[in-house]
Amino acid sequence: MLHRTIRVETRTREQLVDVTRRVAEAVRETGARDGVVILFVPHTTAAVTINENADPDVQADILAWLRKLVPADPSFRHAEGNSDGHIKSTIVGVSLQVPLVEGRLLLGQWQGVYFCEFDGPRVRRLEVVVS
Amino acid sequence: MLHRTIRVETRTREQLVDVTRRVAEAVRETGARDGVVILFVPHTTAAVTINENADPDVQADILAWLRKLVPADPSFRHAEGNSDGHIKSTIVGVSLQVPLVEGRLLLGQWQGVYFCEFDGPRVRRLEVVVS
Amino acid sequence: MLHRTIRVETRTREQLVDVTRRVAEAVRETGARDGVVILFVPHTTAAVTINENADPDVQADILAWLRKLVPADPSFRHAEGNSDGHIKSTIVGVSLQVPLVEGRLLLGQWQGVYFCEFDGPRVRRLEVVVS
Repeated sequence: MLHRTIRVETRTREQLVDVTRRVAEAVRETGARDGVVILFVPHTTAAVTINENADPDVQADILAWLRKLVPADPSFRHAEGNSDGHIKSTIVGVSLQVPLVEGRLLLGQWQGVYFCEFDGPRVRRLEVVVS
Repeated sequence: MLHRTIRVETRTREQLVDVTRRVAEAVRETGARDGVVILFVPHTTAAVTINENADPDVQADILAWLRKLVPADPSFRHAEGNSDGHIKSTIVGVSLQVPLVEGRLLLGQWQGVYFCEFDGPRVRRLEVVVS
Repeated sequence: MLHRTIRVETRTREQLVDVTRRVAEAVRETGARDGVVILFVPHTTAAVTINENADPDVQADILAWLRKLVPADPSFRHAEGNSDGHIKSTIVGVSLQVPLVEGRLLLGQWQGVYFCEFDGPRVRRLEVVVS
């Protein structure tokens, strides 16, 4: 069982944090060469996604669009006032996997891995497992 | 190949069913200690998600918000009248995975696994595989 | 490491391409009988989903609804003008997995695997890994 935990400190309520390099390092530490890398977020107002790593405007557009799609609606029942974060977590998703081939993540040329904060700032974890 | 099928009976058209305990039992039955648990929904108007297990208002908020986002639009072409369910299935997703470490699902403190019914009531299946 | 790449040529800007048969063939070529099939899209304006394989109206409804949900908004910052495609990619997702049991994908009776093009036409890849 090859398992590492990445600690992510977020600084604002909503943020996409590029964790591509840290995921690659965690995988390298396991020594695994071939298999599948599972990324898992053990939180209910956060998520993980893969998207463009070149133009940061893409990340800003994704966050702005999600904020418009799921506003902090006063009709939500949940008293903590972060139902929008829970909903975004379910839409984007808390798990994904990336193939590992000859020691390298099989990401496309323009792909990066992003930890998605929807109720920060907080200290978060991202679980990395190679199977 | 460690494989179990969980049977889920839903009672209303839209429902989040907490299956965390049943998934944990299915995994325990396989005897697996370490690896990855894959959850797969073999239906096209249902899904599986992970979200807050404490306050049931979160689940109500997610369902209500999805209902508003994807109403039963009269402009949909599909004659069965459940296109909203198909769309929700694609947005939330039919597969996810959870790391298994020393015999325990690596869920966060506030996370539960929810089977999502979007066109019930029906008898459904949730496939559980450990790899 | 059992790995195959499927080449997908899309013909329009937005398209759902049924790749179920090609995924099944790629898996058959690997000789694997039991395990998990991972599907991974190495692109940032495309995705992969599982949905109804019977009535093509379902696929049309999904695409039309996504187009309405994420229009080509002039307020997007990303200069390439395809932020809608990036957002749809994150919502639908670039990875999913299907259990493989006795040489067959454990898809439900009405399920097919669809490559989702959100910024075509282009030549795309779908990575298929069995673990």
